[in-house]
Amino acid sequence: MQVAGEMIIGRSAVYGKEGSMKAVDPSRNVEIEPAFGLAGAADLQRAVELANAAFDVYRETSLEVRAKFLETIADRIMDLGPTLIERAMQETGLPQARLEGERGRTCNQLRLFAKVVRDGRFQTATLDSALPDRAPAPRPDLRLRKIGLGPVAVFGASNFPLAFSVAGGDTASALAAGCPVIVKAHSAHLGTSELVGKAVAQAAAESNMPEGVFSMLIGSGQTIGQNLVAHPFIKAVGFTGSRAGGISLMHTAAARKEPIPVYAEMSSINPVFLLPGALDNPKLPQAFADSLTLGSGQFCTNPGLLIALKSDKLQAFVAAAAGTIGAKPATTMLTPGIHKAYNGGVKGLAAVEGVQQVAAGQTNDLPCGAQAFLYQVDAKRFLADPALEGEIFGPTSLLVVAEDEAELLAVAEHLEGQLTGAVHATADDKALATKLLPILERKVGRILFNGFGTGVEVAHAMVHGGPFPSTSDSRSTSVGASAIDRFLRPVSYQDVPAYLLPESLADANPQNIPRVVNGDLVWNG
Amino acid sequence: MQVAGEMIIGRSAVYGKEGSMKAVDPSRNVEIEPAFGLAGAADLQRAVELANAAFDVYRETSLEVRAKFLETIADRIMDLGPTLIERAMQETGLPQARLEGERGRTCNQLRLFAKVVRDGRFQTATLDSALPDRAPAPRPDLRLRKIGLGPVAVFGASNFPLAFSVAGGDTASALAAGCPVIVKAHSAHLGTSELVGKAVAQAAAESNMPEGVFSMLIGSGQTIGQNLVAHPFIKAVGFTGSRAGGISLMHTAAARKEPIPVYAEMSSINPVFLLPGALDNPKLPQAFADSLTLGSGQFCTNPGLLIALKSDKLQAFVAAAAGTIGAKPATTMLTPGIHKAYNGGVKGLAAVEGVQQVAAGQTNDLPCGAQAFLYQVDAKRFLADPALEGEIFGPTSLLVVAEDEAELLAVAEHLEGQLTGAVHATADDKALATKLLPILERKVGRILFNGFGTGVEVAHAMVHGGPFPSTSDSRSTSVGASAIDRFLRPVSYQDVPAYLLPESLADANPQNIPRVVNGDLVWNG
Repeated sequence: MQVAGEMIIGRSAVYGKEGSMKAVDPSRNVEIEPAFGLAGAADLQRAVELANAAFDVYRETSLEVRAKFLETIADRIMDLGPTLIERAMQETGLPQARLEGERGRTCNQLRLFAKVVRDGRFQTATLDSALPDRAPAPRPDLRLRKIGLGPVAVFGASNFPLAFSVAGGDTASALAAGCPVIVKAHSAHLGTSELVGKAVAQAAAESNMPEGVFSMLIGSGQTIGQNLVAHPFIKAVGFTGSRAGGISLMHTAAARKEPIPVYAEMSSINPVFLLPGALDNPKLPQAFADSLTLGSGQFCTNPGLLIALKSDKLQAFVAAAAGTIGAKPATTMLTPGIHKAYNGGVKGLAAVEGVQQVAAGQTNDLPCGAQAFLYQVDAKRFLADPALEGEIFGPTSLLVVAEDEAELLAVAEHLEGQLTGAVHATADDKALATKLLPILERKVGRILFNGFGTGVEVAHAMVHGGPFPSTSDSRSTSVGASAIDRFLRPVSYQDVPAYLLPESLADANPQNIPRVVNGDLVWNG
Repeated sequence: MQVAGEMIIGRSAVYGKEGSMKAVDPSRNVEIEPAFGLAGAADLQRAVELANAAFDVYRETSLEVRAKFLETIADRIMDLGPTLIERAMQETGLPQARLEGERGRTCNQLRLFAKVVRDGRFQTATLDSALPDRAPAPRPDLRLRKIGLGPVAVFGASNFPLAFSVAGGDTASALAAGCPVIVKAHSAHLGTSELVGKAVAQAAAESNMPEGVFSMLIGSGQTIGQNLVAHPFIKAVGFTGSRAGGISLMHTAAARKEPIPVYAEMSSINPVFLLPGALDNPKLPQAFADSLTLGSGQFCTNPGLLIALKSDKLQAFVAAAAGTIGAKPATTMLTPGIHKAYNGGVKGLAAVEGVQQVAAGQTNDLPCGAQAFLYQVDAKRFLADPALEGEIFGPTSLLVVAEDEAELLAVAEHLEGQLTGAVHATADDKALATKLLPILERKVGRILFNGFGTGVEVAHAMVHGGPFPSTSDSRSTSVGASAIDRFLRPVSYQDVPAYLLPESLADANPQNIPRVVNGDLVWNG
């Protein structure tokens, strides 16, 4: 398949007529062919009308048909073969092995949601029997299931051109929930988006899905993106990206006549607490440096903040980390814009009084090469300056040194919401870790011990979410099986005749799913 | 217990010093003693600080202790005996039997949530085993549970002084979720609020709860209410009331540095579709008139809109309904303000061109007596005038007459989000009902057949919620067991040592709850 510069509107590949743009190869800072046509208002309107028309049909596809559709998307993505990987490498500067791994993750994610759909538990089928003889009033027959919210707008992330993009977690979980999806393609990987978008469209056609189940628009965030979120037919939004971008979409969604949920995964500095016992671990400096520089530091879960008690052991850790970081080469960032913002962020941090550089990686003359850094500041200054809590997207971290345990806990309590919070500790640190845990439970979506947050397992017990500003909605996760819950709402059926009841609520339980009946979980599984 | 004009701040009964107000007896339109002292900024600050301090302790109370606390609240409310009922009658104009029924409902609700807490399923415990030998990277041990969001602000409703107020569904579900609660007492039933608030405080003390688990402030919505929602220590809001009030709180919550969820149950006109077969039911006019005038029409689920096909049978229904409504006495509304707004709403509706009055109830000289009405309009005009979709809170309904099935379905498709949608139909109406159902699924939280929405069962399969503007968040219900889900968020624990794991996630499953383990539901129940 060749990249043609096209978007997808239902069953049609469309070359937009509202201007054009090209992708950029960040390793050379040059534009790549072809030019992509941009969507206009009529394209957007056609996509949302198709999605709206598809919703009632798509949400009532059988669990098996819907699951198979998700698996077919995975198959069609794999069918793209090296074409996809090569284009993604060109557009993102990410290495082949990483992108192949990410492709596997993307397909596994689709297959996980196929399993979630087949399981049927996401419908939360709940039945309360009628009590016709109850006094003073009879109890009606009540049955509850969850259905999709409606068409979902998805905004992919620059840093995961496959797993958090066109057919990434937001799309997979929304489709699993029975919601049609309209993707706004990320301008940093337009060709990758077109290839994957066409794979999804092909899977939809093969699976006899209603035409509007999937569309992908190419255009600017300011016009197409905002207008998509503002459109009355769109009922929810999935976004991964910057804090400013996410907050802007939140405002648009809240200002609608009918406000809608926005699931924006935004910024996080992912505090890592190094408790005294863990500083004896000789592997810690290397593990930290590896996590810090993985993917040029362009992970939502990058360890941007270290917190530790002042000690000689800490000084030894810093010295060792400086050595390992010093050996790290500068690697190409995703876009010239991200590279520029990174350099600006580092410069700003370095200029703050009391902040000192304690480690620096290697440099080179790559146009978008990111040099790794570790800075250090004392806890008092950190607590006094909210700017030190800002995210620097890239391979830079700030070590906050606390005088004592109370100050370390005060730093934890001071933090904004985060995706992850890591604790490095041994059994000797039990007392301090026990005090830290409830604070982290309030502050982060995922607490991890003796590890780093980079590497987000696609699993059932994963939470890739957290209190604001790490996300717009702490009640959700954008990775893992429970991501499907974001796009569902409950509907109750009271005394509805059997011929109108959905399969999940039929007396005979034909889907053979666990159900809550009169308050008790009933299941023969 | 005597009503003293006090609010509750943690363990203390406090007489506010920022002015005072009195409750009003709407049946006589006179103020009732005593005067209630109003809260100032320091009172609010003290209540939220106590709630914040209580959170970590309260959310880790054992399931049994928390369940028992909820049951003790119910017991202490019952202990108030006739004092509570008499004060509530005075303040609301509602009859004794209704208030006794509502008290029973309130206590049953607390007991239902005690059962939900004991069941433990709300924690959605989920475990993924470590796979240390997996290639290319090992899988960590991942465990997920849900915890409370934090302190919750609750705004009670005027129309349910017990079941949707101080110890109503929002408070019960938030406490069940492990969240401290601060209630802003409704000015329409201040004495009722004080009595119930003191019962909750007594139960909290007896149950050795941390002091800040519950507070109740008295003050104006503009100052105390808005400042409560804006306070950084408040993490979610429960509200039942007007559309303007709910939207105002939504805006305050969205404008915070850290936006928080608002669960506002606002306005709904609860469409009732009368399909041709159902018009043969001779009991329908009486059932409609009874539902329309129940509690002076002051139910969120009041049938404010009828939709039917033009026919001779419909004319006969209207004639019969006119007879039954004509026999309905005017009854006292909750407050002079609600009475005035009702009369204004009816006057506005009657003045719309093409709207004609087809039934009127009796009048009398009660100062806040509400006369019942049925108006009629053709579907074309209804579709053209959004104002006809506004809620008139009280015993007035509008019959929309459609020329044909397509027009009836167009009216359904045109509707805003609603709490309920009712269909009266027989087997003969199957074809039309089948077309109507998917539209209603998108528009309402509860679909009911051959009944009216008044009477909201407190059950597991109940949804008292719906798309905007019926509520601010269609993903939730404010009545029934799943109301607890509103106040929870997931937290993931990765490689967390056993000594720090919460009980719900411990290997041995000491709570004996159903859990999802490696994707499969595991339960020996």
